[in-house]
Order: sequence, then C-alpha cells, then structure tokens
Amino acid sequence: MERTYTLVISCPDRVGIVAKVSNFLAMYGGWITEANHHSDRDANWFFMRHEIRADSIPLGLDELRTAFAPIAREFEMDWYISDSEKKKRVVLMASKESHCLVDLLHRWHSGELDCEIPCVISNHEDFRELVEWHGIPYHYVPVDKNNKQPSFDKVEEIVEQAGADCVVLARYMQILPPNLCEKYVGRVINIHHSFLPSFAGAKPYHQAYERGVKLIGATCHYVTAELDAGPIIDQDIHRVSHRHISEDMVRLGKDVEKTVLARGLRWHLEDRVLVHGNKTVVFN
Amino acid sequence: MERTYTLVISCPDRVGIVAKVSNFLAMYGGWITEANHHSDRDANWFFMRHEIRADSIPLGLDELRTAFAPIAREFEMDWYISDSEKKKRVVLMASKESHCLVDLLHRWHSGELDCEIPCVISNHEDFRELVEWHGIPYHYVPVDKNNKQPSFDKVEEIVEQAGADCVVLARYMQILPPNLCEKYVGRVINIHHSFLPSFAGAKPYHQAYERGVKLIGATCHYVTAELDAGPIIDQDIHRVSHRHISEDMVRLGKDVEKTVLARGLRWHLEDRVLVHGNKTVVFN
Amino acid sequence: MERTYTLVISCPDRVGIVAKVSNFLAMYGGWITEANHHSDRDANWFFMRHEIRADSIPLGLDELRTAFAPIAREFEMDWYISDSEKKKRVVLMASKESHCLVDLLHRWHSGELDCEIPCVISNHEDFRELVEWHGIPYHYVPVDKNNKQPSFDKVEEIVEQAGADCVVLARYMQILPPNLCEKYVGRVINIHHSFLPSFAGAKPYHQAYERGVKLIGATCHYVTAELDAGPIIDQDIHRVSHRHISEDMVRLGKDVEKTVLARGLRWHLEDRVLVHGNKTVVFN
Amino acid sequence: MERTYTLVISCPDRVGIVAKVSNFLAMYGGWITEANHHSDRDANWFFMRHEIRADSIPLGLDELRTAFAPIAREFEMDWYISDSEKKKRVVLMASKESHCLVDLLHRWHSGELDCEIPCVISNHEDFRELVEWHGIPYHYVPVDKNNKQPSFDKVEEIVEQAGADCVVLARYMQILPPNLCEKYVGRVINIHHSFLPSFAGAKPYHQAYERGVKLIGATCHYVTAELDAGPIIDQDIHRVSHRHISEDMVRLGKDVEKTVLARGLRWHLEDRVLVHGNKTVVFN
Repeated sequence: MERTYTLVISCPDRVGIVAKVSNFLAMYGGWITEANHHSDRDANWFFMRHEIRADSIPLGLDELRTAFAPIAREFEMDWYISDSEKKKRVVLMASKESHCLVDLLHRWHSGELDCEIPCVISNHEDFRELVEWHGIPYHYVPVDKNNKQPSFDKVEEIVEQAGADCVVLARYMQILPPNLCEKYVGRVINIHHSFLPSFAGAKPYHQAYERGVKLIGATCHYVTAELDAGPIIDQDIHRVSHRHISEDMVRLGKDVEKTVLARGLRWHLEDRVLVHGNKTVVFN
Repeated sequence: MERTYTLVISCPDRVGIVAKVSNFLAMYGGWITEANHHSDRDANWFFMRHEIRADSIPLGLDELRTAFAPIAREFEMDWYISDSEKKKRVVLMASKESHCLVDLLHRWHSGELDCEIPCVISNHEDFRELVEWHGIPYHYVPVDKNNKQPSFDKVEEIVEQAGADCVVLARYMQILPPNLCEKYVGRVINIHHSFLPSFAGAKPYHQAYERGVKLIGATCHYVTAELDAGPIIDQDIHRVSHRHISEDMVRLGKDVEKTVLARGLRWHLEDRVLVHGNKTVVFN
Repeated sequence: MERTYTLVISCPDRVGIVAKVSNFLAMYGGWITEANHHSDRDANWFFMRHEIRADSIPLGLDELRTAFAPIAREFEMDWYISDSEKKKRVVLMASKESHCLVDLLHRWHSGELDCEIPCVISNHEDFRELVEWHGIPYHYVPVDKNNKQPSFDKVEEIVEQAGADCVVLARYMQILPPNLCEKYVGRVINIHHSFLPSFAGAKPYHQAYERGVKLIGATCHYVTAELDAGPIIDQDIHRVSHRHISEDMVRLGKDVEKTVLARGLRWHLEDRVLVHGNKTVVFN
Repeated sequence: MERTYTLVISCPDRVGIVAKVSNFLAMYGGWITEANHHSDRDANWFFMRHEIRADSIPLGLDELRTAFAPIAREFEMDWYISDSEKKKRVVLMASKESHCLVDLLHRWHSGELDCEIPCVISNHEDFRELVEWHGIPYHYVPVDKNNKQPSFDKVEEIVEQAGADCVVLARYMQILPPNLCEKYVGRVINIHHSFLPSFAGAKPYHQAYERGVKLIGATCHYVTAELDAGPIIDQDIHRVSHRHISEDMVRLGKDVEKTVLARGLRWHLEDRVLVHGNKTVVFN
C-alpha cells in the first residue's frame, strides 16, 4: 500500500477555500487520490478531506505542516495531517460479550483493520486467553459497583501508557465517568445495541421486544458525558417479527453490532469522520 | 381469483388447538391454501390464520360460522371468518401531502389493493379533483384548531355512513380525538414519518436531522389514544448522510412512507394482522 | 430555489485539474454549493461536478462557457455547464404497466421531479386519460411486430419535435432499434425488472421464480444497442421467500422498479451521472 | 434449552394432511412449540415442520418414529424426526480466506451455533493454529491441480470417519468432484461470493466490478454437480458505488458472505430448509 498523507479540515464556510487548498497542493505537485468536501449551510461550516500520495510531494510531513499553517490560520481552520505510515493505536475494552471483540481482533489479525492494538482492557477475565493468543496484552480491571473511580483511574493509566489514539468500547458494559468522556472527546467509540435515539440505556433489545418494533438496530457513536447521546457515526438495522423473542433479537443484533462497529472504527481510523457539534460528517 | 374464507383466531394457548381446528376443516374437506400459527410463550397466547377455498366446503358462510362456534367457545377464542367476496370498505383521510394518497389510489385503481374506497376525507380542498377523477366522493371537512370537535363529529358521521371497515390516515395531519380512537380501535391505520419510537409527534424529520441519525424511517401502526404509541404493523428505513438536510429527508422519507403504509394496509385487508396487547402478529 | 450552474467534467487524470478548476471558479467569486471528484485509477480518468450559485458569478452562462473553454481544451475535457433555470425535457414511454408512469407523473406533478414532460408515448391507448388529466399530450404509436421500423420512425419524430433531452422507458415493453440507441446514447433511461446481469431479457420475475432466488431486484440503466447491458445507474432489491409465486414477485417488484427508476432519473436530471465506458460515476 | 423433536415432512399435496398430523400429535399430548406449512401449488407439493417438546410426549424417539410411519406411508411422505439432543456433526472446509471460518468457529465457540465440529479440512496449512486453539482437529489435504482425485478421496475418507451430517465449504476454493456432490446431496453447503445467478464461477467481485453493478451480494446454497447452480438457501447484498474498486468489493463482500453463510447453516441445523427440485422452502 502506498504511503499517503491525509489532510482534514473544518472551518467557517466562505468563498475560496477549495481554490486555496487545491492551489497549495498543486503547487507542490501533490497527487490527490481522494478528495471530499461538504458545506453545512445551516451551520455555515465547511469540511474537507484530501488523501495525497506522500511520494508526490517534495516535503516531509513536518515541512508540509509548516507550509500549510498560514493557510489554516487565514481560514481559521481546525485541521491536521495524518500519515498512513503512522498507524493509530486503538485500545479495545470489553465485558462478557465476545462478538464485537472477536470480530475486531480478526479484522486486525487478517490485515483488514490498519491499526495497532496495544492492549485490551476488560472488567472480566473471560477473554484473556483469546486476546493473548493474538499476541496482545490483556488488562483485567474489575469494577466495584460501589467504588468505580479507582477502576477508571486504572483504565486511564493504561490508556495513557498505551499511547492510545482511540478507545473502542466493544460492548464494554460500564459507563465511563464524565472526566474520561471529556478528556478523550472524539476518541472513544461505542457500539450501542439499539437504533438510537430509541432505546438508549440498559437492555435495549428487551425494550424493543416490549414495544413490538419490526426492525432492530445498532448505533456506533462517539462517547460523550450524556449516555448514548454522542455524535452518531453509523447505524444499521435487521428485520424482526412476532416470532422473535428478545433472546432472538439479542442474537440477530450481534451481527448488526459487529458490522456497524467495525465500519465506524474503520472510517475513524481513515480520518473520514469529522465531528461538528453533535453530528458527524462521514466522508466514506 | 378464487373465492376464499379466512379463519382468524386468537386464544389462550393450550394443547390441541391445531388438531381441533384442522380436524374441523378436514371433516368438511376444506382445502387450505395457506395456514399460519404463532404461539406467544410470554403471553401464553395462540394465534392462527387459515385461508380455505370456499368451493371446497359444502357450507355457506353463515353455516360455517355456526358450525365453528362451539369450538370457538371451548377454546375461548377471539375469532372471525372473512369472505374474499365481501371487500372491505376503506375510508382514506389526507391533508396536504399527496404521496401516500396518490400511491393508495393507484394501487386500488390498478387492482393491486383489493378493497372498496367509499370516500376520501380531507381537511383541505387540494385533492378533490384528483380523488374525483378516480370516481371517489371527496369530503372536505376543515378543522378549526380552536374548536375541533364539530369536525370530528362530521368525520365520524361520514365514516359511519360509508360503512367503513377501516380508516387510513394517509398523512392526515390531525390527531384523532380519544373517543374515535377507542370506537375504531384496531381499525384506524396511520403512517408516522419516523422510525418509532424515535421521533414521535411533530416534525420527525427535523428531529432526525437535529439528532444526526444515519437512517430515517417510517412506521405503519394502529391508532390508539396515546399519540404514535399504538401497535406497530410494519416499519422500514432509508439511509441518509450528512449531505441530506431535513428537506431531503422529507423527500426520501416519502418513498418509505408510501411503501410501508401500502404494505401494512394490504396485510390488514388480508386479515394477516392480529393485535394482542400493544403488539401485532403479522402472518405475511 | 436559487439558480445554479452545474459544471460537469470528465478527462484523463493528471495533477492540477482540481487546482485549475477551483482557481477558475474562485477567481470569479463562484460560490460552490456542492463539489464532487472521482479519480478512476484503473481507467486513469477523472470526473468532477460543481454546483455554483449563479448569482455569485458576474458572467452570463455563455460568457462562463467561453471563459472556461481554454481550460477544457488544455485538459482534454468532456464537459458541459447546465443551468437550473433551463429545465430538461423528458419524454416518457410506457406500455401496459402503469406503476412507473403514475409514479413519475406524480413526482413531476407534485414538484419533486424538476423537469418538463413534453409528452408521453405509448404503444397502447390505456393511459391516455390519465396522462391527459395531467395536461400532457399523449401519443399512441402502436407497434406492428412484423414491421416495427415505421413505429420507431414515428417515435423518433415525436422525440425530436418534443426537443427531448432525455427519454425514459417507464416499462415500455418494446426494444428500441439500434439506430435510436446510438442516436440517443446516454439519454435513454430504462428500468429493467431484475437485478442485472441476472435475468436479462423477457419475463425476469418468472426466471427468478424458477431459479429460486431469495431476493428480487430492479435495475435502472442507460439503453445501449445490446439488450439490458448498458451502464447501470442504480439497483435495489426486495426479499422474497418460497411463499412468493411469480405473481407476488411481479407485485413486490413494482415498488422497487418505480423507486429505482425515479431515483435514477432524478440523478440524471441533476447531472449527477457521468458515463465512462460501460460504467457510471454517480455523484449523489 | 428444552429438548425438542422436529418432524419434517414433504409429500404430494392433498386435503387432510394437516389434520392427520395434528391429530397424531394431539393424541399423544404433543406440545407444539412451532409449526410451519407450505403448499407449493405449481409443484402440487406440501411441506411441513413441527417442533414438539420431547417431554410432552410419552414415547421415545424410536417409538415415535414407529408410531408415525403408517401415516407417512399413507401420504407418501419424505420425512424424518430429529432430536435436539443429538447435535449435528459439521465438517468445515476452508482454503486461504479466513473470515467465514473464523466467524463460524466463533459462533460455535460462543454457543450460538448448536452443532459439533469434528474437524476442519483445508488445502492449506494457514489456519491450523487457529483451528487447533479451538480444540478442533485440523486436516491438511493439499490438492494437486493435475491430479485432484486422490485429495478428494482423502476428503471423503475424513468426512466419513467424522460421521458428518453436513459439510460446509467456508470459502473452500476447490470444486468438489461430481461423485461427492451426488453422495452428499443436500448436505454440502457453499457460500458463493456473488448474488447468484449473476457472476457464477471464478472471481465474481472482479466480474461485478467490470459490469459496474451498484450492489454486490453473496449466496448460500446446496452444492450440486453443476457449479454454483444448486438450491439457494439465502442471499444478501451490500451497496457499492463507483468509489469501490474490486478490492473494496472483496472486503465489503466478506461481511455479507459470513453473515449469509452463518444464517443458512443455522437454518440447516435447525431442520428449517426443505429442498424440492432445485428450490428450497425455508421455514424461518
């Protein structure tokens, strides 16, 4: 796979942004392999993502950043340039449901998910053997329901030591404390087992069964301090009928959950997800 | 199309129901063209639907009912037998959105929807010409927002005179008063333009846009006194992205709405929808 | 709706196209409301579409074209600029199935489809009343199966007189002769009632039923001289089961057909579909 | 999970089958937990499946079979009764793509797939470690492309020794010889990575890319001597666009393949799939 730089920008919308950025890239002979724009007219905000072949540009990454900085200032951009050779570090967290964890580990192991997984954290010992078989360290951090803070302090310490760019709650059944939600804003991805905003909170499939819905779903979103209310990255559904009891919904939902989570994580890793307010732009 | 009787049953679950009913039908040589059962183990309730070729049974409809009544009593059944030759009478109600109304009229006109449409009621004059072109009477019943009861009294009168088996709210933007909801329980079908229970109430697409969901939906359900909370017949969704503003969602949603409503109504007309509590069994 | 110009480009891929075009637009203060690029690396071909607010540019449409022409020449572009105020003229053709025709007429009548429909052509008289109710001329051009050419000469004459930008075969069950396919290449849209390339040709639902597939579909594509083999614009599917006979598939398929055709036509009218070889780029 | 017997029947259609079978079950007090019928009117064939609580019947399995045999003879039934306590034995075969294999192993390991996996057979060594970690024997049977028969003799021997009820080709990239297809008819399940009948044979995603389809799919089917032409159990699709090259289709298709294969296998294991001619009845 060829090395690419990815330039991601969001800023107040105005005329001339595309021209300025395109000129900048063209001036250095940048070979753009993918480009996406979006103008949110309600928010008057502009979003842009370029993938550029690294070997087409006669600048190193730091030089490129330095060269671009004046343009970014002029347009008051939130921006960054990522390098495909610097893989993102993703910490996985799980509890007692294995389907999302196994799915992500397999995608990583088979080369489909382009990241590093420095460790897995769980509040149970169940998956140690599985995780370690993949050559990944396993941290068992039990959570005392009457005194959770020490556990989350431990989690924070592990995440910091792992140099994590991103934390994935792969059916981790604990609610992160607000301080961690805020510290890692835009970097913690959760899979919720319902079609949000329906059935936030506990036991969504049982809620869905009680309501008699004909479709169940799953939602991949960034975690915020408000439970199951963060920016949505992706959602999908599966049809159910009166023949399905809540246990069937749990089973059928697993396939939706793991697919949606993997998709959302992949887009995050490829810098395709831009958050603005409580919504996402996904350049996929 | 051959004439059929449809026997629809729901009752407390116990051993021997199927045998008893099957024997009854076999005894008269009944040719079953479709049979469905469902046992709801949580509710301990049993549901059953049989379609039988009318010409295979040496009894008239009334005789058949009389012959079956003792079995129904024995098993404490809610039951009825419908006759494909007696078409159901469906009153359509609409406001200012035409997509569901046009879609249903066309399905009826082309013979896909097997029912009679004695009239259309609307709180606007907009669709008179369209409806009358189909040879269907059009009743304009404006609703004074400060005094709605006289209008709904008028609606009730029209529905009664039409001998309606069923009322379809084809994007009728008024909330029926509780007395009508109760009088016509299980006989008023609504299409709500969201994936319920998300975004009940007004302007669901705008709510969906604000929340940043990645799928929008529509829900066909029986109307109850509690707004948008009745038993769900069918639901479906359409994918959206950051590129879609709420106007786009409105447009994309129309196709989902009309398809889901037509599907739900068809199942209702074919006696495939059995309500129990706030849920439906749909033998489709 | 504000007036927009849409600049559509395809050309051999090389560095600097985006910069050149963006600069050109920025130079005149062009307010880009939507921009899309695609680089087909196998074909080494580049595709681009810009929507620009007409009132943001101090040039008339002809002046804009003149100003852009040198850039187009430099990059060997296939290109055009369309004007949202000049509505495309769409001739509809139908036979004896009404669902696609009614659906398109309703979308046009309700303002969803932004085009003119100068006339409808059919080889049957069935839909005259319906079409004329919409205020649209109806041309009955019967096709003699032993001598079709005179009919297609007549069709060609009507299409020419109508000044058609586009012809839609809304379940028109005749095969256009090769000379018309070639004359109107990229301008005739067909809906085929199968998930192509499966079940090309006649009676696709019966073929699908015989094969025992579990999903049926429809395909919207540009017509070419080779039957059902032209560039695909869109496809969709509906689930079926052993309970569905071919008549059910026909019925269920209608909803897919009309939705897919309307979607494909909409994208075509918005200049979102770019053909290259036998494939399409759809900027939706 | 309670023990159940599953009675599966197919036979020429005539009046009285349901009554006879229902009576038989009711006579012994059989508690039916699920019942499905289907009458194929084109083929004049009847299909039926009953799940019965084993503890509700005062007969052992053999006695039950003996008691039912006269009814089966009377109606010329193909029939069997399976026992949920006797788990089916499933041999998995794989080549170099791991996604289906890993997915099935995980579903088995987590208890979702209710079967035994006596062994895995592969023409490559790649997955030995993975399979053996699950405690399952791994048989490496390389295939010499110039002399395949000895390999398939070996495969047959292993399948026989494993006492396999069913063989799953989990992206096993070899074509089984006709004698094995015939010997194990209705017992070998394959996942083909296209939406059959489109793109049978080799490299379907590349074929799909070349044709420019907008949906890719996967098909789970029983293997017959004619390649990719056996009875279809299930199919599903995923949307693609011009942005997806064939490598993307391969990746996106994997999720469809593994989901469809797992679903088809589950239905097979639960005796929900009845084959008639080249089509299936799936009581799901």
